Amino acid sequence: MARTGRRPGDSGTREAILAAARASFAQRGYDATSIRAVAAAAGVDPALVHHYHGGKAELFAAAMRLPVNPAELIAALLDEGVDGFGPRLIGRVLEIWDTEGDDSPLLGLLRSAATNEAAAAMLREFLAGEVIGKALVRIDSDRRELRASLAASQVMGLLMARYVVRIEPLASADRETLAPLVGETLQRYFTGELPA
Amino acid sequence: MARTGRRPGDSGTREAILAAARASFAQRGYDATSIRAVAAAAGVDPALVHHYHGGKAELFAAAMRLPVNPAELIAALLDEGVDGFGPRLIGRVLEIWDTEGDDSPLLGLLRSAATNEAAAAMLREFLAGEVIGKALVRIDSDRRELRASLAASQVMGLLMARYVVRIEPLASADRETLAPLVGETLQRYFTGELPA
Repeated sequence: MARTGRRPGDSGTREAILAAARASFAQRGYDATSIRAVAAAAGVDPALVHHYHGGKAELFAAAMRLPVNPAELIAALLDEGVDGFGPRLIGRVLEIWDTEGDDSPLLGLLRSAATNEAAAAMLREFLAGEVIGKALVRIDSDRRELRASLAASQVMGLLMARYVVRIEPLASADRETLAPLVGETLQRYFTGELPA
Repeated sequence: MARTGRRPGDSGTREAILAAARASFAQRGYDATSIRAVAAAAGVDPALVHHYHGGKAELFAAAMRLPVNPAELIAALLDEGVDGFGPRLIGRVLEIWDTEGDDSPLLGLLRSAATNEAAAAMLREFLAGEVIGKALVRIDSDRRELRASLAASQVMGLLMARYVVRIEPLASADRETLAPLVGETLQRYFTGELPA
């Protein structure tokens, strides 16, 4: 059944892989989805999935049609140092979402997670495994996982308030105004002194 | 048609008022819903709606089956002073939600707002009018509305992260641990020095 060795550049194959990945993430969640199983479902060799999409985090970002892979974005921003990471992250998040508009797939993922346990599990596992577990472990702080999940709560809330519920004046505020305000919160969660 | 002067204590009447209120909030939103129109739809005198539910904010809380009226809760906590208001508010919010459990109507409202524009508008108008516009105006700060909407974003994000997406370790953390951590964020949004 498996058609191994298909040529890269076949956009039908690429789409078949993404469709299989989307189905697997939705049905089995992030953790239980493997590149091997996605490849089998799409009828291609696992090497081709790696060739097109790199690892599982990139495959997830592509399947969810995210304009960036959150784990990669965080890693790149951390390369510039931990100082000012919070404001830089919020600045980029707002830039991406402001550009994407209301019916961005990223908001779709957040909306789905709000109402569908399978989508919530997928988001939770992706955040825990890739974002918190891999990218954010580079921040050298005590209680790192708690800090990261607090930061995730503020980012999710910002997206909900600005793009979904659209609470004013936050919804219409310039991102240049918001990035330092909310960024300082993230910075404190990541590196600040926490109450005991 | 209107059956005026029905006896207080008639639980059928009370339910009819709440059903009419729920329908009107959902269809017309918070701002466009009036006590008078709800009374007419329920076939009772407006005075009876006031008798059972006080003002529109109380009617909304009752119709949404909220265990507390958010505007009243905030007002009561502000009576104890602005110092420490952030941690006190988060402490109470977590206490209420932890007790309510997963299928609380409050979470239902948040889930609906995530996927349904009518529900989002209702939540937005209620937050703007009652919570931000009435309770939080008592905080004497510059850029008060922006501060309040930032605080709303962190509260919504905390609820999403802890109860809906359930990101660990935030989802299982003691509320005694979380209240000062997240409360400090709210306190800064409300009364802290904001970047220019």
